[in-house]
Amino acid sequence: MVFNIGLLGLGTVGTGTAEIILDNFGRNPLLKEINIKQAGVRSLDKTREVELSADVMTTDLEAIVTDPEIDIVVELLGGLEPARSLILMAIANGKHIVTANKAVIARYGDEIYSAANEAGVYVLLEAAVAGGIPVIKPLKQSLGVNRIQSVIGIINGTTNYILTKMAAEGSDFADVLAEAQQLGYAEADPSADVDGGDAADKISILASIAFGERVKREEISCEGIRQISATDINYAEDLGFVIKLLAIAKGGKGQPLQIRVHPTLVPKEHPLSNINDVYNAVLVEGEPLGQVMFFGPGAGKGATASAVVSDIVNIVGILKSSDRRTNLDPLLSCSHQHYANLLPLTEITTRFYTRFLCKDVPGVIGYLGTCFGNHGVSLESVVQIGFQEDLAEIVVVTHDVKEGDFRQALAEIKDLDAIDSIPSIIRVL
Amino acid sequence: MVFNIGLLGLGTVGTGTAEIILDNFGRNPLLKEINIKQAGVRSLDKTREVELSADVMTTDLEAIVTDPEIDIVVELLGGLEPARSLILMAIANGKHIVTANKAVIARYGDEIYSAANEAGVYVLLEAAVAGGIPVIKPLKQSLGVNRIQSVIGIINGTTNYILTKMAAEGSDFADVLAEAQQLGYAEADPSADVDGGDAADKISILASIAFGERVKREEISCEGIRQISATDINYAEDLGFVIKLLAIAKGGKGQPLQIRVHPTLVPKEHPLSNINDVYNAVLVEGEPLGQVMFFGPGAGKGATASAVVSDIVNIVGILKSSDRRTNLDPLLSCSHQHYANLLPLTEITTRFYTRFLCKDVPGVIGYLGTCFGNHGVSLESVVQIGFQEDLAEIVVVTHDVKEGDFRQALAEIKDLDAIDSIPSIIRVL
Repeated sequence: MVFNIGLLGLGTVGTGTAEIILDNFGRNPLLKEINIKQAGVRSLDKTREVELSADVMTTDLEAIVTDPEIDIVVELLGGLEPARSLILMAIANGKHIVTANKAVIARYGDEIYSAANEAGVYVLLEAAVAGGIPVIKPLKQSLGVNRIQSVIGIINGTTNYILTKMAAEGSDFADVLAEAQQLGYAEADPSADVDGGDAADKISILASIAFGERVKREEISCEGIRQISATDINYAEDLGFVIKLLAIAKGGKGQPLQIRVHPTLVPKEHPLSNINDVYNAVLVEGEPLGQVMFFGPGAGKGATASAVVSDIVNIVGILKSSDRRTNLDPLLSCSHQHYANLLPLTEITTRFYTRFLCKDVPGVIGYLGTCFGNHGVSLESVVQIGFQEDLAEIVVVTHDVKEGDFRQALAEIKDLDAIDSIPSIIRVL
Repeated sequence: MVFNIGLLGLGTVGTGTAEIILDNFGRNPLLKEINIKQAGVRSLDKTREVELSADVMTTDLEAIVTDPEIDIVVELLGGLEPARSLILMAIANGKHIVTANKAVIARYGDEIYSAANEAGVYVLLEAAVAGGIPVIKPLKQSLGVNRIQSVIGIINGTTNYILTKMAAEGSDFADVLAEAQQLGYAEADPSADVDGGDAADKISILASIAFGERVKREEISCEGIRQISATDINYAEDLGFVIKLLAIAKGGKGQPLQIRVHPTLVPKEHPLSNINDVYNAVLVEGEPLGQVMFFGPGAGKGATASAVVSDIVNIVGILKSSDRRTNLDPLLSCSHQHYANLLPLTEITTRFYTRFLCKDVPGVIGYLGTCFGNHGVSLESVVQIGFQEDLAEIVVVTHDVKEGDFRQALAEIKDLDAIDSIPSIIRVL
């Protein structure tokens, strides 16, 4: 049998996808049954790394999603439009969808999956989260029999690269960002990565799968790494932590979900503390399973293409194995109806690392204890660890506190004359 | 819809499986459609941790595998017989199979899968390797579009616990084994674990999936950890290594496969070096993907039951989604026809750590260099690191060598008068 696919986009991941399909020796034998019927691009004149015959290439993307001979549309355009419209049009035309587009799924997943369920087609998205690491399918198919308690990921390679470099070299954020941009690890406009938006898109997708509810992307609290300084990385190191940008989803036991992205002090003995450079990792905890972790390359042509092609092959396997399909396999589709009720950030419980610059050390330490104590915040450690010119630096790590209580205490502390400033507030895992 | 399952065996994993199915709140909604119709046990008198009504329990295992109302038979007996015969009988009766039995699949996989393909039923075995860590399904479904180069695992929890303890406490094998037996981490007869047979069963299954060929279990070279001493663990540590029992499968590029289980010096910067206690990990390397690693609990009631139930749910998902199934999904079945051609151990290329006890250090070092050199073995380091009574200990780490050449050199060296003995020869990753 031959299954026709239409590629939307032939950039880095599209090229990698075509390369795997065309060079299929030694790979899954189903690849031999896959034919790239059309590849939609913006310009036919551009030189491509992959050889596709001229009649495969087209600039007419709508012709691809409506082509009656195409079985699977592979959307690799990125961004919201025209990706969303083309996906919906392809679904309306009975095509199965494979996409690597976390932004469009995180924002329009409800619309897209409702349409797909209506049309009886699959929308697979392994490549949208953590690149080549199989994590969407294991969450759906294997881990879902557990009561999932948390999904915690390092799922943005750019920020992990920057934080790893900052820690290794003692460099500041701006310098390492510039270097990452030169190496192609960060984009010219790095906002989506360094401000946490990309990680928020991805954790919104993972949380929805893990906890079986739709998630409103805009409700996810999201903090990036621009404010992380070499100073804090050093102090964290002294205290036994590394700083990572974590995407966290917690829930279960009928509690509201909490989903958040922020820099986090991770204890050095924690499995996520060793995930460095552009690598990604996702740690899932469930009952009765315990903890499992998936680790690997979270981006890059080959890794992401591997995930895209695995989804294509998955659909081909299903198409080959049934002559008439009455329903979608519930383990590969999405039928969530309800929107998750998200816990406001003020209600979450976490530890905090906070750095104060102050004039009068003994006075401040006493006041900190009293003021935190009045708001039910108890302190795990208070360390005076340095001087910045004539100001003393005091670092405090709290025990688990409700974030709202902690912020109230901090608002009071800020008003004290002896406190010059509070340069850093970072949550602790 | 209701899908009837029959459990063969209600030991630890069977109990865990029943518990997940019966206590399904907050888990995959498909669990609500699964009914434990029969549970086959040896004795009806034993007190069970899980509550199943009296008419579910039976000692007649054949009645389960022939019951026309049962859709899925879950084999959790372990061992070769009657597991093999019951699985084959269930298949002949059109039942899908879920099993956690690595021993039976490693030895009779060809017979079982041939029968299953004939009957058009699935045989899923996620729980057979690495307990609760999803690794079989990701290998089949997601990673297979890559050209797999290697699968390397720490897939026996008992030996990993023993080696971790030996390293942490400087204890000897026999003492730690006794302790592990008391804690229930090692069996009264620990041979299958400590001699590497269990890991060999599992890597035989992983290799077959990763490289798409049948594997003759008895051809796998297998060495256990009984001969690992506290001395070698210490020296390895000084040289920057930890000792792990690795199960290794390498192949691709049309080369014969190599599959082997043996204690291995793992560099401390390697991702497998941090996998401790009873945890398992599987590292897969492929092109274009790169390396991905799966980490988690490799054994235990909850973890293994999680994998068993995920397979059951997987089959239920398929049964719900097709009215008439003409073929098995090739990504979930096994149609390998050819037996892999395995590379003999003498032909593999690896580094070696070797410890010599000798009387005349300068003479020996000169002779080692010459003799290894004559056989094309080049040395990465030669260190004299201690004394055992009046004998000097020399530790040698080679560069990559062909194992046959190394063994020939060693046979010559052994004959030298100045060499008292060669207490340890361990491969290096």
